[in-house]
Amino acid sequence: MKINVIKVGGAVVENEQSLIDFLHLFVNIEGAKILVHGGGRSATALASELGIETQMVSGRRITDQSMLRVVTMVYGGLVNKNIVAHLQSLNQNAIGLTGADLNYITAVKRPIKEGINYGFVGDITEVRITHLLTLLNINTIPVLAPLTHDGHGQMLNTNADTIASSVATALARAGHETVLTYCFDKAGVLSSPNDDSSVIPLLNEQTYNTLLADNIISDGMIPKVDNAFDALHNGVSEVVITSASNLVGGTHIVL
Amino acid sequence: MKINVIKVGGAVVENEQSLIDFLHLFVNIEGAKILVHGGGRSATALASELGIETQMVSGRRITDQSMLRVVTMVYGGLVNKNIVAHLQSLNQNAIGLTGADLNYITAVKRPIKEGINYGFVGDITEVRITHLLTLLNINTIPVLAPLTHDGHGQMLNTNADTIASSVATALARAGHETVLTYCFDKAGVLSSPNDDSSVIPLLNEQTYNTLLADNIISDGMIPKVDNAFDALHNGVSEVVITSASNLVGGTHIVL
Repeated sequence: MKINVIKVGGAVVENEQSLIDFLHLFVNIEGAKILVHGGGRSATALASELGIETQMVSGRRITDQSMLRVVTMVYGGLVNKNIVAHLQSLNQNAIGLTGADLNYITAVKRPIKEGINYGFVGDITEVRITHLLTLLNINTIPVLAPLTHDGHGQMLNTNADTIASSVATALARAGHETVLTYCFDKAGVLSSPNDDSSVIPLLNEQTYNTLLADNIISDGMIPKVDNAFDALHNGVSEVVITSASNLVGGTHIVL
Repeated sequence: MKINVIKVGGAVVENEQSLIDFLHLFVNIEGAKILVHGGGRSATALASELGIETQMVSGRRITDQSMLRVVTMVYGGLVNKNIVAHLQSLNQNAIGLTGADLNYITAVKRPIKEGINYGFVGDITEVRITHLLTLLNINTIPVLAPLTHDGHGQMLNTNADTIASSVATALARAGHETVLTYCFDKAGVLSSPNDDSSVIPLLNEQTYNTLLADNIISDGMIPKVDNAFDALHNGVSEVVITSASNLVGGTHIVL
């Protein structure tokens, strides 16, 4: 089966109009598709309303017990169900999932490393695609929240980009032609960070290393591109980094 | 297929230990099962933390925009995912759903009646069981949050008892032998409200009307028993009202 795995960030899905605009483009993608979403801005906003301070280390959220409660509510409830309800309004059957649902992703609580305790952050140990395929086969769109579980009753917070690449990789390993698309707020990987017309249309490892050496690729992009190459090395057919408003353009990443 | 639909209230599932105790009993029920849960106490607690006042009319929550955000987070995220993760820890595959997921329940926003505006409260218009049966057929337990959607992108708050009876009724109409169990904090329907040993083991419409006339059945029980008889009239085989700590006892309601 050809399967599109599309990751969209919080900035797009947390705003009602940008979510609707995005979903109109998303539903036009032909065939089987899986949507992975973020929601960090809403989590930070709710945490703030509750008097909980948000702490980020290297772009990752420190997730203590109270922050886990926040992200479970925001990612698994608020953002996920809003997306699913809007997909239904476009006559696309969809179903929201965390890693606990169908037991499709298990993870292990990240150990304390170099003095940094990320708390209830989960590093993925296994992706089980059987039931995802069941859902795709009944023409349903799985909508994946950035949450996993440890198999022992504990929910965990896992980066949405990592979930997208892990799911795409697992599908590719099982022989499915998988295209992984990361949507974000720029038109693609840019050679000039503030110029959306400077999209690099095609990126391979050699050009990537050159751009890194020249400090042309900015900090926020590095984990995305690294994840992209990891996914390609693990059998994903194509990785696309693009704007949520242009799902057919952007930067196409190949080996 | 024989299917058990079990509704459990917030008081049981919102406390970690009582949830675990309950799930140990629940997973021993043989065959296909569906769990419907509440979560009102957690919703009220979060609302309070956010400075939102909870207003109830006839036991139903007034759900303005800010309260809808709260219940979507608490029912669809926090409570639902915690139950699913705990079922997984007991090696029971489970999947959390709102009415939007799989489009399995649509509802209509309750119109303003007698001056009461319930806000984003949904009255069920249709239950679609096809995909619930798909999930049961792959030995997965659907865990249903008390949320529906209107088909136009709007989530709605719907009473968990009503969801349980509507789902049981839809399954019964499709020819499935369906047993509907309501768990709550008493041992069953009691003839003496504060005496758990006064369980009425069998209740039919005649005895119910007598108990009502004598004011023996308390306010909180009335909608539950009314829902039970509605379900029986619509083909459900048996309705049980019991304690979450005794899923095989309680009050058995028949026509």
